[in-house]
Amino acid sequence: MNRDNLKRLLAPRHLAFIGGRSMARALKRCAEGGFAGRMWLVNPQHAELEGVPCVSSVADLPCGPDAVFIATNREQTLDSVAALAAKGAGGAICYASGFAETGAEGQALQAQLLAAAGDMALLGPNCYGLLDYLHGAALWPVAHGGQLVEKGVAVLTQSGNFAYNLSMSDRSLPIAYMASVGNQAQLGVAELMDVLLDEPRVTAIGLHLEGLKNVPGFARAAHKALEKGIPIIALKTGVSQIGAELALSHTSSLAGSDALYDSLFERLGVIRVSGPVSFMETLKAAACGKLPAGPSLIALACSGGDAGLIADYAEANGLQLPKLDDGQRHELAQVLPGYANIANPLDFTTAIWGNGDALERMLDSALRSAADAALLVLDYPGEETGERPQCDLLLELYCEALERHGKTGFIASAFPELLPESAREYLHARGVAALQGVEDGLVAWGRIAAYQQRREALLARGESALVPLSPSPLAGGELLDEWQSKQALRPFGLPVPQARLSTPERAVEDAGQLGYPLVLKAVSADLPHKTEAGAVALNLRDADALQRALGEMRQRIAAYAPGVAFDQVLLERMATPPLAELIVGVKREEGFGLALVIGAGGILVELLKDSRSLLLPTNDAAIRDALLSLRSAPLLTGFRGRPAADLDALVAAIRAVADYACENAGRLLELDVNPLLVGADGAVAVDALIRIAE
Amino acid sequence: MNRDNLKRLLAPRHLAFIGGRSMARALKRCAEGGFAGRMWLVNPQHAELEGVPCVSSVADLPCGPDAVFIATNREQTLDSVAALAAKGAGGAICYASGFAETGAEGQALQAQLLAAAGDMALLGPNCYGLLDYLHGAALWPVAHGGQLVEKGVAVLTQSGNFAYNLSMSDRSLPIAYMASVGNQAQLGVAELMDVLLDEPRVTAIGLHLEGLKNVPGFARAAHKALEKGIPIIALKTGVSQIGAELALSHTSSLAGSDALYDSLFERLGVIRVSGPVSFMETLKAAACGKLPAGPSLIALACSGGDAGLIADYAEANGLQLPKLDDGQRHELAQVLPGYANIANPLDFTTAIWGNGDALERMLDSALRSAADAALLVLDYPGEETGERPQCDLLLELYCEALERHGKTGFIASAFPELLPESAREYLHARGVAALQGVEDGLVAWGRIAAYQQRREALLARGESALVPLSPSPLAGGELLDEWQSKQALRPFGLPVPQARLSTPERAVEDAGQLGYPLVLKAVSADLPHKTEAGAVALNLRDADALQRALGEMRQRIAAYAPGVAFDQVLLERMATPPLAELIVGVKREEGFGLALVIGAGGILVELLKDSRSLLLPTNDAAIRDALLSLRSAPLLTGFRGRPAADLDALVAAIRAVADYACENAGRLLELDVNPLLVGADGAVAVDALIRIAE
Repeated sequence: MNRDNLKRLLAPRHLAFIGGRSMARALKRCAEGGFAGRMWLVNPQHAELEGVPCVSSVADLPCGPDAVFIATNREQTLDSVAALAAKGAGGAICYASGFAETGAEGQALQAQLLAAAGDMALLGPNCYGLLDYLHGAALWPVAHGGQLVEKGVAVLTQSGNFAYNLSMSDRSLPIAYMASVGNQAQLGVAELMDVLLDEPRVTAIGLHLEGLKNVPGFARAAHKALEKGIPIIALKTGVSQIGAELALSHTSSLAGSDALYDSLFERLGVIRVSGPVSFMETLKAAACGKLPAGPSLIALACSGGDAGLIADYAEANGLQLPKLDDGQRHELAQVLPGYANIANPLDFTTAIWGNGDALERMLDSALRSAADAALLVLDYPGEETGERPQCDLLLELYCEALERHGKTGFIASAFPELLPESAREYLHARGVAALQGVEDGLVAWGRIAAYQQRREALLARGESALVPLSPSPLAGGELLDEWQSKQALRPFGLPVPQARLSTPERAVEDAGQLGYPLVLKAVSADLPHKTEAGAVALNLRDADALQRALGEMRQRIAAYAPGVAFDQVLLERMATPPLAELIVGVKREEGFGLALVIGAGGILVELLKDSRSLLLPTNDAAIRDALLSLRSAPLLTGFRGRPAADLDALVAAIRAVADYACENAGRLLELDVNPLLVGADGAVAVDALIRIAE
Repeated sequence: MNRDNLKRLLAPRHLAFIGGRSMARALKRCAEGGFAGRMWLVNPQHAELEGVPCVSSVADLPCGPDAVFIATNREQTLDSVAALAAKGAGGAICYASGFAETGAEGQALQAQLLAAAGDMALLGPNCYGLLDYLHGAALWPVAHGGQLVEKGVAVLTQSGNFAYNLSMSDRSLPIAYMASVGNQAQLGVAELMDVLLDEPRVTAIGLHLEGLKNVPGFARAAHKALEKGIPIIALKTGVSQIGAELALSHTSSLAGSDALYDSLFERLGVIRVSGPVSFMETLKAAACGKLPAGPSLIALACSGGDAGLIADYAEANGLQLPKLDDGQRHELAQVLPGYANIANPLDFTTAIWGNGDALERMLDSALRSAADAALLVLDYPGEETGERPQCDLLLELYCEALERHGKTGFIASAFPELLPESAREYLHARGVAALQGVEDGLVAWGRIAAYQQRREALLARGESALVPLSPSPLAGGELLDEWQSKQALRPFGLPVPQARLSTPERAVEDAGQLGYPLVLKAVSADLPHKTEAGAVALNLRDADALQRALGEMRQRIAAYAPGVAFDQVLLERMATPPLAELIVGVKREEGFGLALVIGAGGILVELLKDSRSLLLPTNDAAIRDALLSLRSAPLLTGFRGRPAADLDALVAAIRAVADYACENAGRLLELDVNPLLVGADGAVAVDALIRIAE
């Protein structure tokens, strides 16, 4: 695919529709929707359809159209794509299904389709297509809602129905582009994100995903978004087991481990939302105003009930409500009645309702604040109350005051449906986000208010620029024993105890050189569960104790695993009691490559389920952040008067594991360091196991 | 107050309004809204207002009206209430503010108001009043939305503005009553709940609370609701620190510890929701259909995107999606296209859209399920698409199929605004809840689907019938030392170690009788932090060790707390290493009385923040449930191959603490048993401290 062709698809000068009556209607919708370029309907059987004249074939078109919607069956679609490519078209959208989502035959057809497209951009097959509200090009098979915008968000979804409903939804989300990506034979989420980020009128990107087909490409595009400061908001489904199974059969998306999506999104500053409402509201918060610099808020409401909701949701979403200063309190007391609650959030009551002068004074006092943004909670009552003009006045004064004070601001209604479309459109035209529902609105604002600082921290951390590995799937593999595993990891910098590989016969002599107290372990790849096998003896203080332990161990292993030879033992200096015990592992997951898992060890593993995953490659800063975000992090930072753990040594030890994994990405299946002990001075890996492809 | 008068207020045969033009308009709104009884406007200065004739005084009314709205200033309100009481009115609503919410003078006026009301029911002052949609009586000072219903929910709120907006909100919640309770001088949340529960047309009760004024009364009413099977849904604000402060100044509600509200609600099966949207949707789920018997669901959608959302939200909200059986799969495969996803949730696609026969077959196959309820996710596109009649057809067939199969069902649109009012009204008339937004809808359904089983479990547990204590506030108090505390608790059944209270001089002799190994502790109410003072010596194995420990302890205490005498010591038999360590405490909190706090001990206190609070009195079943709901509960039930803890002994020990607290409710300030150790055989309280009023 030629990138210029993709740009033609996204900014078309002319459109063609290939198909029957439904395509004639699609063409007419574009005309009604404001598309200004030339349009053709291609149909070999009719001279005109629904009043639209037809061109009989692609070859007969006056030029290769920039964008084409093909609504024929799958075989004809193949022919059309080939003809369009020959004609020099920019991009084609294939509506037909029956390709890779249906099995082997369809996969072969999809491969032919892809080949036929050649340099041409290709969206689908098995998709609803593209709604382009910047140019009025609705390359779309059915009706749709929405209107031309000057700028707005780009939405990419794996569900045509989601796009259809989103376009109809009465929430005033300004959409620049919406694409249903279907089978992503050529253009996928990653490729579209990348090119949309070059369009300055795209203010944020929303993704509705069942799974990602191209994790490295996505990571590159999301990093580009982070560098440009364009928020990416993702609604990722398939969280549940059943949901993951459905995704596989719907768009053949391997959902993968949902937790790894969290890792990926966290690494790249992608904002994850939980549903259609938070998707729309968070996109509005990102797209309709200036991005706020930080989380502090001056909040205004006309009732104590609303103020109470604001206070709770602000705290729950990391938003701060700085106290009013004395000057503000004094001024507000002069303009507001005695029963007003002069605080932040401010309950300014309805006493000055409709009084422009008093409202303006109130707004000026409140907005003279160092807070990063302002919020007004306002609900429009029904038309029949006659109260709406007073709400309009307040909105107008609020917008003017925001401009006077150079402040970022937004509105939220307490009840989602009590902010009418006219008010939303007015607000958006003035750069003030109109959020619906104070709870959803503050969830959305909380995410957006954290974006800028998070973005700077992530860019400084540097991990977002590292593209996740995407090694091929592997199966089978061979287990290295503890000694081999430690020997493999040591060169990368993993500290392990002072040790001797020995035999039961030579152990006492070797122990004399190593020194006591020590630990004795049987070494065999056939004994992965050493503790259960009785193959570990701790804290042996002298030769007698070692001799006794060797005898007992021989008996226990013989009983536990009769076939396993007791011919190799590991002698290690006993580690001093640690401040904390961790588990570090590496897992291989399809699509994602390798993930480093860092967790609390000991009894906390089960009680806290306390772990963080980092996709590889990663870096020291990310490992440090992951450690400090564990629930058990207090154990690392000086718990109950104990000294702090040696975090540098711990990070270096974990980094060693990560480096080993990256170096061996082509053949590593899994790896466990358990426990990794950390003290006030140093860290040490007491046990390790590696499984590697043969 | 006479309860019959309250019933008159809630089912009025006649209404009176006292005030000016706004009251004339209020009266006319009642006429328009369908109120069928007599109405009077009382105004001494005018013969008529806005076309409504006026009665010049309360005394001139032909009878004592069942319900009166008083919209005069606070002094005139007092006079009117007295006159109405004399006239034999049923109930009065006082709109005026300036009473207890403003300070001492207002408090005195409020007391006069209450006295003047006598036997009459009194709502307010400082409230918007009562919207009664069963009779069309809008005892309300301003406009409102809503319409007459045959049955519906009752909403009680501490914010008039919340009620105003809720009445306008386009969500089709059927409301039977809505009351803004204001200062709750006489009728409060508890009193209104109690009487509303006797009205069979009230299907559920929604509460919007900043705090409760009458916890015991609330508990009695909520227990009555639980017995009747009427769900109580609560939106409690003041969760945040700022929110709690606002509540205090808004309606003088002491928010109290938000965690204790969770305890109270949990005990009584009250469903807590997080915001206005979940408040409305959960009430709709409770009120608009039959309550489902349990959490399983057969779910239908016309797109893979919707099915993915359903699967995720079902799992997140405890809803089960049982697999289709072979017969269902076979039948569905015959009626649906090959690309349909035949599973639960079912993606039946839009292929059979508008085909009544096929839809009916699809519905019959799917609903022939043992699931407790059915869900259809459906979004209405815009009118202009011409698709709405097909949506109407599907709804009709769905309702019919539900009736044929005797199944409880509901609808959720993926996007909240894509379920139009006409569809919602149709569904509600057929007993099918019309929920808006698939995420909020499944949150709501999850709560309601759990209600019946939860209700049975709570009634069986028996704790809900115990009314929380409401002892008076106390201050100051005296600390009992460890020995005194243990002596106080022992008679209630708290097991403590075998012990001797001794002196440093007599200790060795007493120890000989007690037996080794033992623990030595200094005993003094002036040494509450014994460990820090060096006043504890563990695991002393013989007289020599004891002698040494006595000497060292004398020195350490002299250094740590020079003024404190070392003249009493406690000798206790050393406890065996436990399976788990707990903390049990009792806290006194205004409004709530006494709360028993049960938590994980040791390092888990800080890492897990793992505790549960039970209001007192409580019972064994509730204590057991609390223990088993701790995050650290796995330590009690046989962790990693260890034996299970003696749960009966642990419950009995905690119950002993609870019984002591109830017996001493009038003077107990706080109590701590830390640690309470539990083993495979028995539990023992190793340390205890009590603070009691002098």
